[in-house]
Amino acid sequence: MKKAVVFFVLASGLCWSQAPDTFHPATTNVPNAEYPRIDADSRIEFRLKAPDAQKVQVQVGAVPAIEMTKGADGIWTVTTPPVVPGFHYYYFHIDGVTVNDPASRAYFGVGKDSGGIEVPEKGVDFYLVRDVPHGEVREHWYHSKVTDTWRRVFVYTPPGYDRNQKTRYPVLYLQHGAGEDETGWIRQGHANFILDNLIAGGQARPMLIVMSYGYAKRAGIPEPNLAGAPFGSPAAMKAMQTLTAAFEDDLVNDAIPMIDADFRTIADRDHRAMAGLSMGGMQTFQITLDHMDTFSYIGGFSGAATGFISGNNAFDPTKAFNGIFADPVAFGKKAHLLWLGVGTAEPERMHTGIVAFHDALVKAGIDVKFYESPGTAHEWQTWRRDLNLFAPLLFQRDAK
Amino acid sequence: MKKAVVFFVLASGLCWSQAPDTFHPATTNVPNAEYPRIDADSRIEFRLKAPDAQKVQVQVGAVPAIEMTKGADGIWTVTTPPVVPGFHYYYFHIDGVTVNDPASRAYFGVGKDSGGIEVPEKGVDFYLVRDVPHGEVREHWYHSKVTDTWRRVFVYTPPGYDRNQKTRYPVLYLQHGAGEDETGWIRQGHANFILDNLIAGGQARPMLIVMSYGYAKRAGIPEPNLAGAPFGSPAAMKAMQTLTAAFEDDLVNDAIPMIDADFRTIADRDHRAMAGLSMGGMQTFQITLDHMDTFSYIGGFSGAATGFISGNNAFDPTKAFNGIFADPVAFGKKAHLLWLGVGTAEPERMHTGIVAFHDALVKAGIDVKFYESPGTAHEWQTWRRDLNLFAPLLFQRDAK
Repeated sequence: MKKAVVFFVLASGLCWSQAPDTFHPATTNVPNAEYPRIDADSRIEFRLKAPDAQKVQVQVGAVPAIEMTKGADGIWTVTTPPVVPGFHYYYFHIDGVTVNDPASRAYFGVGKDSGGIEVPEKGVDFYLVRDVPHGEVREHWYHSKVTDTWRRVFVYTPPGYDRNQKTRYPVLYLQHGAGEDETGWIRQGHANFILDNLIAGGQARPMLIVMSYGYAKRAGIPEPNLAGAPFGSPAAMKAMQTLTAAFEDDLVNDAIPMIDADFRTIADRDHRAMAGLSMGGMQTFQITLDHMDTFSYIGGFSGAATGFISGNNAFDPTKAFNGIFADPVAFGKKAHLLWLGVGTAEPERMHTGIVAFHDALVKAGIDVKFYESPGTAHEWQTWRRDLNLFAPLLFQRDAK
Repeated sequence: MKKAVVFFVLASGLCWSQAPDTFHPATTNVPNAEYPRIDADSRIEFRLKAPDAQKVQVQVGAVPAIEMTKGADGIWTVTTPPVVPGFHYYYFHIDGVTVNDPASRAYFGVGKDSGGIEVPEKGVDFYLVRDVPHGEVREHWYHSKVTDTWRRVFVYTPPGYDRNQKTRYPVLYLQHGAGEDETGWIRQGHANFILDNLIAGGQARPMLIVMSYGYAKRAGIPEPNLAGAPFGSPAAMKAMQTLTAAFEDDLVNDAIPMIDADFRTIADRDHRAMAGLSMGGMQTFQITLDHMDTFSYIGGFSGAATGFISGNNAFDPTKAFNGIFADPVAFGKKAHLLWLGVGTAEPERMHTGIVAFHDALVKAGIDVKFYESPGTAHEWQTWRRDLNLFAPLLFQRDAK
């Protein structure tokens, strides 16, 4: 989903002759692991001991795999060209078998626990642990009538939530992408640190963030199988809509009333937002536009109406989403914010689809905030930036 | 650390001819993964596609690796003999490289994210999600003066904690083992579900559980390197004591005051317990016996005084731990509970060491609760059972 040409930044002007000791272990490594390590120019040095292997490659994000070279000691190594900053999933291919680097912490993505590497962005720390008050992230369980199972949500509560027992808070529902789960926005996205930092700087209103698992199987029916259908294909889109319909019911009928009962929320549409990345963005449009009595702030981070992502850009603003965009004045009264974001280095189809969705909305007279993340692909750095710019715009109408 | 002979239960009397459709995917699998799968006799069927591999083995727990067989389709398979119930770490060895099964969720153990498989125990559900009120598990951050870093703890709060704003709670500090981290007691141990179930049944008093990272590096000094020293060796023990001393200071001087400030605790020694498994058990003895003004309930789950585990059973109750056991009457007034647990199928050195520690304490006139977990090894099923029996004994002196 991402091209090598956009992923590896051009190296002209950078120094290629630095000593190896300028490399530092990635913060995503397990304790005491020296490799992978990264230098000041964002080059990554990978290392794997596999004396009997015939061929070892490393694959960072969706970039084509890079060959590694075997040393006399049976250790395979490679140093990549400079890499775009942010969080990337990565894998080793050992004689055709795709495995995780045992030196990496595991992050749930692509439907499995995957290796991940954090490449620092120079001078940027909005998503890092800073010396500010920290909120909590709570693992919270509820019984869903839709799925007839116990489901887990993670809830970010802002600093002071426990102390300020008389304060009630607005809520952002924030969704992961396809193949990820409800841990993604904390572990890969650092949503908690982003909000901690914004709140400490007075840039965002203290709020709750609720992160749900975006897949839900309605009790008593077989699970739609997404495994065989290519991403964006009609079959995959249909299966995704079936899943989203179950998730929509679970979120609106089970999760939101539970959150409003179990947490000190301001339980009205003016204080409820939803956003999501990629598949979570598509789900956000489907769910919020179906339930404008429930939500008033809407964010799509690299996610658009399904027609655009599938390459079928047939979008009739007077008919799509039950015609909600047909009357832009009425829509503007309901929607306090409609945000679309995309990285400039995303795959062409994704970028074009989201730009086309934006243009169609603007042409229909809809007020849209549009953000293009410079140089980043269909990856977490794009979505961290989205959240960092989106959250300050939320719930400002009655903020003190 | 565990022997094949004790790990695989004897199959006599069990039916070996069951049809393959009696196998079910493990609950520890990633979504939609059919393998590994387990039958009613606790046999596990593993599967891995590796057409170009020459030799593939699966290793479950510390049992010697089992050869897998390659089919014409390039898929390697094996079905194990019946396996002891509970949670086991497992790995594939592909041509000599140890990797995780991509079909398994990852669990932090052995110093890295590892595959894990949950083998159900017939008729036993004390550690499973049941239809009872659930507490929360909170990721909570604090700045440690000892390490000069932000550190993460997980805090289990019992059902009703948020609603019952006037209630204060006792606290159990609960530690993971070597190579694990502060996620272990929730993800592998299910400590939250164990307490939810005990509390729902009226068998344990509602309490907080605080789970810390048992490794701490004192700010400004080099980190002790445990990598080269065999477990239990004098070098490893010395490094572990250095680490534990830093962790002890962090826990007692930074974490406990923070917990007492940030949560509604009953902040006295009568309402503070500490327990841990393996290394966490050793740390528990070192820390609690150093701080009997802080703790009054003590639990060692497959962990003993360091001398016993290292094979040097020189233990003089009049001198060990600054002579705290020299006066059993005085000790009995301070310690409301001293618990030692061990699995009958643990490695000989571990089992013998803990039994010897127990016997020496009894001989010295110390009141010890001793629990032997039938048939289980140095693994999580032993420690889940410990917690399930230990927690009901806590904080009963002023319970209503």
